[in-house]
Amino acid sequence: MSGSVSEARQWGRLMELAEIGAIVGDRPEDRGVNRPCLSAGDRQARRLMIGWARAIGCAVSVDAAANLFFRREGSDPSLAPVLTGSHMDSQPQGGRFDGIWGVVAGLEALCALHDAGVATRRAIELVAWTNEEGGRFRPGCTGSMSWSGHTKPAAFDGILDPDGVRYGDALAEQLAAEADIPRRALGGPGGVVPHAYVEAHIEQGPILEAEGLDIGVVSGIQGSRWFTVTLTGATAHAGTAPLRGRRDAVQDMVRAITALNALTADASDTLRFTVARIEVAPNTSNSVANRVRFTIDLRHPDAAVLREKGDAIEATIRDAVAHCGVAVEENFHAMPVVFDPLVTGAVAAAAAAEGLRHRALPSGAFHDAQFVVPICPTGMIFVPSRGGISHNPAEYSTPGQLAAGARVLVRSLASLAG
Amino acid sequence: MSGSVSEARQWGRLMELAEIGAIVGDRPEDRGVNRPCLSAGDRQARRLMIGWARAIGCAVSVDAAANLFFRREGSDPSLAPVLTGSHMDSQPQGGRFDGIWGVVAGLEALCALHDAGVATRRAIELVAWTNEEGGRFRPGCTGSMSWSGHTKPAAFDGILDPDGVRYGDALAEQLAAEADIPRRALGGPGGVVPHAYVEAHIEQGPILEAEGLDIGVVSGIQGSRWFTVTLTGATAHAGTAPLRGRRDAVQDMVRAITALNALTADASDTLRFTVARIEVAPNTSNSVANRVRFTIDLRHPDAAVLREKGDAIEATIRDAVAHCGVAVEENFHAMPVVFDPLVTGAVAAAAAAEGLRHRALPSGAFHDAQFVVPICPTGMIFVPSRGGISHNPAEYSTPGQLAAGARVLVRSLASLAG
Repeated sequence: MSGSVSEARQWGRLMELAEIGAIVGDRPEDRGVNRPCLSAGDRQARRLMIGWARAIGCAVSVDAAANLFFRREGSDPSLAPVLTGSHMDSQPQGGRFDGIWGVVAGLEALCALHDAGVATRRAIELVAWTNEEGGRFRPGCTGSMSWSGHTKPAAFDGILDPDGVRYGDALAEQLAAEADIPRRALGGPGGVVPHAYVEAHIEQGPILEAEGLDIGVVSGIQGSRWFTVTLTGATAHAGTAPLRGRRDAVQDMVRAITALNALTADASDTLRFTVARIEVAPNTSNSVANRVRFTIDLRHPDAAVLREKGDAIEATIRDAVAHCGVAVEENFHAMPVVFDPLVTGAVAAAAAAEGLRHRALPSGAFHDAQFVVPICPTGMIFVPSRGGISHNPAEYSTPGQLAAGARVLVRSLASLAG
Repeated sequence: MSGSVSEARQWGRLMELAEIGAIVGDRPEDRGVNRPCLSAGDRQARRLMIGWARAIGCAVSVDAAANLFFRREGSDPSLAPVLTGSHMDSQPQGGRFDGIWGVVAGLEALCALHDAGVATRRAIELVAWTNEEGGRFRPGCTGSMSWSGHTKPAAFDGILDPDGVRYGDALAEQLAAEADIPRRALGGPGGVVPHAYVEAHIEQGPILEAEGLDIGVVSGIQGSRWFTVTLTGATAHAGTAPLRGRRDAVQDMVRAITALNALTADASDTLRFTVARIEVAPNTSNSVANRVRFTIDLRHPDAAVLREKGDAIEATIRDAVAHCGVAVEENFHAMPVVFDPLVTGAVAAAAAAEGLRHRALPSGAFHDAQFVVPICPTGMIFVPSRGGISHNPAEYSTPGQLAAGARVLVRSLASLAG
């Protein structure tokens, strides 16, 4: 049935959806999307999807978190369904592919099965998770967290968007606008438990393109630890204060980052260590800085490495600085998740059967899939991102790359659904 | 006549002046001053000075730049006068001593001569220069630059303060408020040329205090070069982008500063190299920085060293960075000035005669004196600053330290005035 995947249909739908909230990037050819979750644009995009899914006989339903489901029935409706999907919301200056392609690819898979007249034992369900990006309401993944029982949905109600709109109110508005659509239960304990979940997504990194590959068989999602470091020194006149007596927070930041670079050096280039936000006070050119605050973003797929390196950060900085007081705060901690061989095996077999060049690789970014991991066997399929660029109107994958991804998805789903 | 210097009178006048625009610092004992130039507070402080100076028979005059002069006549009025003085304006969060002490010390010297009944051959003139700090109208030293012919006074008229007031309008308002005071000519070529100029000032640095000294015989004002460095890389996802392919502007900044530290290393701790302003874009913790802009403040009393090190900055950065584009802009360049042995000799002899511990040292900060250097033999007297702190309500020198400075000043003036 992968032969029934239509490159043109999938691309056409993606481009039609990309017109809703379309924005132009730095270069005229960079055409992106700004489509926040729970917005009029989101609802318009969902209505397009609903129309296309109903046209091939899918049942549509929505849960209390506004996660939108499309079900293609299996020959044994009593069996747990196989779930696929991703999200339809974008970053404020986002691309046309992040998230939405996984939903369109799921629909393309259902269409291919429909066109090929293939019946699966298990039903296949396609989901569009609410608010993965967190671009309007932080944090993201509120839809999948609500569905999986990770967090009670009401916990998100009070979150405000930049205009002061409550998440709970925006969600109620969305559900009211979709009151014609049957309501379904949330998932997780006491709710729907799928047989397996597989999410298709653009890589958002440069590895597949750099290695000339078609498909990433995602092995898991790396863990992350986020820190804020504050170095406190003393201001002084840049002209009068000898260097020897200074407590210069900029110079101690340089010492700290240099030592952290040594701590996190990794010949395999797997560990991700990033300092990307720096605030200096008083930040005037002729007064020695008395305070520097910088962030650390540390990621690794191996929990032991992440624990060891992250736990060594504070001592490394304290050893490195010469003059400043040091405060290190850990702001966020997410352990790595490892995907299930049931799904990664199905994806690898599908890629091989399609004759596509593939490799296993961890996801550097977060995805809804990480919240599905505790509920059922989970995996992901990556396709290449041009230049690794994402969260940017320059984000791009070719129609052919996306069609190859859809072929691997439909094979994986068919295999998992029996 | 140095025995006629009154520690109590000088301190009392300083504290009385410090009530005009008084502010409280971080600690209750840190009592500072916010008294912008050409303001009502400035005029109130000047009226106090005028009253005290007239009480000892001084003639008062003001020039077109609102520089305020007090003249104690000499026995030969045809000779060029000896000039002393400093400024009365403060930084917005300034201390009670920076500038104003040099004016009060000059008055104390005139009072001591008066009280001791000493006649000098040359007249001694005391000046309060307009707008040294540049705290309200940038740049500073507009009064001394106008007086010395460095810049035509009208060139400053269009400068706006933070409230949008023109310098020219504020100056006209000041002159109108002081229309009762006789007007005098500017200095420099075609104007008044003093026999010598000596300025008393707090050190604004930690050297005298650290070395247990009473007096700094200022050898000159070090030169300064200011640069802005822009490193341009590429943003990337902190989770997905391998470190090897990144063009991380923060990491290149660390490389650049490390290399600049090596370039500017100076065992004598004379060279001042400061990076104190950093701006990062997009400055979000999980997106690799695509641009870092940082400032360099480089100072040295030796023009050859300043030229050599400053000229090597761009190449040093280009050699050091690994991935980013480099742009280096020089924003300001002031060559060192060397004070005249006529004045430095008089100051050193006066300090020795007073039995005070003294040393020669360059000034790290700018002063009006640097604009007087081209006009006549010039020098400065420093007294210790507690902790080297200045431009801060915590700025402090003891009554005894300031009295010692006034004794050295009056001896120096008497010696120069014959």
